[in-house]
Amino acid sequence: MNEFIKDGERIDELNRNGYTILQHPDKFCFGMDAVLLSDFARAKKDDVCLDLGTGTGVIPILMEAKTKAKHFYALEIQEDSVDMAMRSVAMNDLSEKIDIMAGDIKEASKIFGPNTMDVVTSNPPYMLDNHGLKNPNDSKAIARHEVLCSLDDVIREASRCLKQGGHFYMVHRPFRLVEIISKMQQYKLEPKRMRLVYPFVNKEPNMVLIEGVKGGGPQLTVESPLIVYESVGNYTPEIYDIYGY
Amino acid sequence: MNEFIKDGERIDELNRNGYTILQHPDKFCFGMDAVLLSDFARAKKDDVCLDLGTGTGVIPILMEAKTKAKHFYALEIQEDSVDMAMRSVAMNDLSEKIDIMAGDIKEASKIFGPNTMDVVTSNPPYMLDNHGLKNPNDSKAIARHEVLCSLDDVIREASRCLKQGGHFYMVHRPFRLVEIISKMQQYKLEPKRMRLVYPFVNKEPNMVLIEGVKGGGPQLTVESPLIVYESVGNYTPEIYDIYGY
Repeated sequence: MNEFIKDGERIDELNRNGYTILQHPDKFCFGMDAVLLSDFARAKKDDVCLDLGTGTGVIPILMEAKTKAKHFYALEIQEDSVDMAMRSVAMNDLSEKIDIMAGDIKEASKIFGPNTMDVVTSNPPYMLDNHGLKNPNDSKAIARHEVLCSLDDVIREASRCLKQGGHFYMVHRPFRLVEIISKMQQYKLEPKRMRLVYPFVNKEPNMVLIEGVKGGGPQLTVESPLIVYESVGNYTPEIYDIYGY
Repeated sequence: MNEFIKDGERIDELNRNGYTILQHPDKFCFGMDAVLLSDFARAKKDDVCLDLGTGTGVIPILMEAKTKAKHFYALEIQEDSVDMAMRSVAMNDLSEKIDIMAGDIKEASKIFGPNTMDVVTSNPPYMLDNHGLKNPNDSKAIARHEVLCSLDDVIREASRCLKQGGHFYMVHRPFRLVEIISKMQQYKLEPKRMRLVYPFVNKEPNMVLIEGVKGGGPQLTVESPLIVYESVGNYTPEIYDIYGY
């Protein structure tokens, strides 16, 4: 045990730069979606990046390992997650590079100021507030359902925070793709790149990765399919590569 | 040679109901996109269907073989194609079921009347008018480039022709997906089902099949990837099946 871990938490390897991360198995743990988003997202040298709804902080920590961006801000509304993510950042000696901040996505452009970010990432709640929600006070429900912020809030605030020409990267569910594209256009984040994640080569996709450029011109690139499993229990080589195995 | 064929044309098998089709190798021949659209599209018993920009007439002929729809109308602006498609319909003894009509997509809702169709299909020109166009009078150019009709024309007229709750099916290029979704929403053809066609499992998709419902509610189903080739020169079993081999 080290000085950063608290009761009930565990330390997981991230397979990048020797980084590790704290997670609490009874609360929200990051999934493959966050790992795939951190791989799909791009940041250039000296970029300033913001992650909206950072949870465990996995996206800025992985992107710090993979890019030459200058600084990462990460916003999270749940105090327990903020505390745990801050300790993960400290545990990796990244407190100078990553700021985990408590706050509401709906206020992001007030907190950080408009036109300040080169890159905004988000792995937001996927499910509509009224779909199968059991306990609105549950930390997992807040991370998964649009209890505290909607898709509109995420895309609107991402657009406001971004500089003109800045890049937005999001992972979401394909069943909401029409709404995602429509909102991105409404807030001038032109969709430029998209990749669908299919669990198996013969199955429907269960995730969509999408990139938008603030003020960008039309023309979308749809990338090759990202297939997760080669056979039951066996990832494809690309997934192993993304996970750093 | 039979009574239907003219100089320079050939007769190709369609592998459905013994149907055949006339094509002129120097003019426009149908591609895999039309075959995939006729498989992706659905028509119920007694539906009235319209194909916008029918070319050789391959889509209504294949859909007549595959569905129990009552009648097919098919509109085509190029006189040579209209003549050839009419002879293909007659050659298959389908003149009672399929009407090939000369006319402009931009006038479709005037020609057929608003709210008259259960199903509208289209394999329209994919390329923007100003992209790499060589000869605007060339029949292939008219079929491939938006010389005589735009994406807006196709989606607007499809929506006008459809009854409330009617279904629109189109094949197009993924690079225009954002515009397709945006125009479908504008004209109240809610995107409900989408399938991307990838030439190989590790390549970018080169076609998108999309279904919209006039006045439909939100929620898109993205289907499993349609992979064309298993290896160079060898189709996947699904493609062989769609072609009826």
